[in-house]
Amino acid sequence: MDKKGKIYVVGIGPGNKENMTFRAYNTIKESDIIIGHKTYIALVEKIFPDKKTVKSAMKKEVERCEETLKLAEEGNVVALISSGDAGVYGMAGIMLEVAGDSNIDVEIIPGVTSSNASASVAGAPLMHDYVTISLSNLLTDWELIKKRVALASEGDFVISLYNPRSNGRPELINEATEIILKYKSKNTPVAIVRNTGRDGESCDITTLEKMLDFEINMFTTVIIGNSKTFIKNGKMITPRGYKVD
Amino acid sequence: MDKKGKIYVVGIGPGNKENMTFRAYNTIKESDIIIGHKTYIALVEKIFPDKKTVKSAMKKEVERCEETLKLAEEGNVVALISSGDAGVYGMAGIMLEVAGDSNIDVEIIPGVTSSNASASVAGAPLMHDYVTISLSNLLTDWELIKKRVALASEGDFVISLYNPRSNGRPELINEATEIILKYKSKNTPVAIVRNTGRDGESCDITTLEKMLDFEINMFTTVIIGNSKTFIKNGKMITPRGYKVD
Repeated sequence: MDKKGKIYVVGIGPGNKENMTFRAYNTIKESDIIIGHKTYIALVEKIFPDKKTVKSAMKKEVERCEETLKLAEEGNVVALISSGDAGVYGMAGIMLEVAGDSNIDVEIIPGVTSSNASASVAGAPLMHDYVTISLSNLLTDWELIKKRVALASEGDFVISLYNPRSNGRPELINEATEIILKYKSKNTPVAIVRNTGRDGESCDITTLEKMLDFEINMFTTVIIGNSKTFIKNGKMITPRGYKVD
Repeated sequence: MDKKGKIYVVGIGPGNKENMTFRAYNTIKESDIIIGHKTYIALVEKIFPDKKTVKSAMKKEVERCEETLKLAEEGNVVALISSGDAGVYGMAGIMLEVAGDSNIDVEIIPGVTSSNASASVAGAPLMHDYVTISLSNLLTDWELIKKRVALASEGDFVISLYNPRSNGRPELINEATEIILKYKSKNTPVAIVRNTGRDGESCDITTLEKMLDFEINMFTTVIIGNSKTFIKNGKMITPRGYKVD
């Protein structure tokens, strides 16, 4: 083999070049092949129109990693891209698992994850202790997710929900909201941020009681405040505890 | 006033240019003045040696925001910098609070937060539901922090600890570890990542039982796995749930 292959799992941030790190950009630029879900390949092709790409489908994550490994074993430097941060419900873990017994080096390039990018659109709701929970029950038992939602609410954590509503199980967020309402006030501020950093970005600031009246889909992050979170000038702020006059 | 001032609260990531987003870089480049804690001003001055800067001290966060507001009211475009993501235990919330009643626009620029950057060094420990808890009791009641540590452990969340050990209260992490050990196995993998993205970056992968034997300071992120987290080829991986052969 003339050239040693390598795998980079690259968190590209919310999707536009602006929110990508220099390291992510340079890594993709210097790779031989970019592989990823077709939605994110389409975003990256706008930035790197001349790169060789491999598009993969949803629910084909293991196959995508196997293909990445094969390409690297053939001597290619491969950038496996993942939206947001590759290590948060992304491709980093599964790629490390798949490459585990090979001789191929895997390097993870961090990125701006969706809860941080979405929080910045809403104001500063994650300024204190927070949890990140995915409401997708494709790979996780719904009973465990519900237990986590309850304990996070009991602990007065700010809660950032990923995958808040799927087409397949739209009722899960209703159940989750009912659980949260047992612990948090119905007036708790909530931010609903859609398409963060992409075309069509939008944000609604509302309350726990009213949040289900707003559009929530799989491209939405829902951030539910703690007991101290407030709204000021249309921004959602969770105080860190500093005394402000 | 000839020029309208504006405030950008900029998350610069772990500290080097590589892990900064294009948006953060361009915002700082186009600002009139950069203000921030002296440690981070020193990092940014390496990237922008000709910029006008204002250095501020630790525990002077409110004063720093007041000075930022004053500079913006004088017509300056000001970049208030914050390490990691400005919205995670950073300057975003306090700046929005201080600027609340002014006419100055405040925009938050997200960055790669310390737990995501540190996770990428350790492998992929944050691949499933996780909590972010600061062990600093400067602004938060220690009883509340302990309650959150217990509930996060009971919920089998991955736990990312910020400010894990201060010089003033080095014993807090010992207490926190005792609480976690009531719920999580002593063999739970733990990553201890120091100076992420900076000179002297280092990472130890160990277990919950042994983690206190390792060096932990205020420039450390400690990531404690869930019941499924494992170590493979020296990398800490929390599985998302995909079936890997």
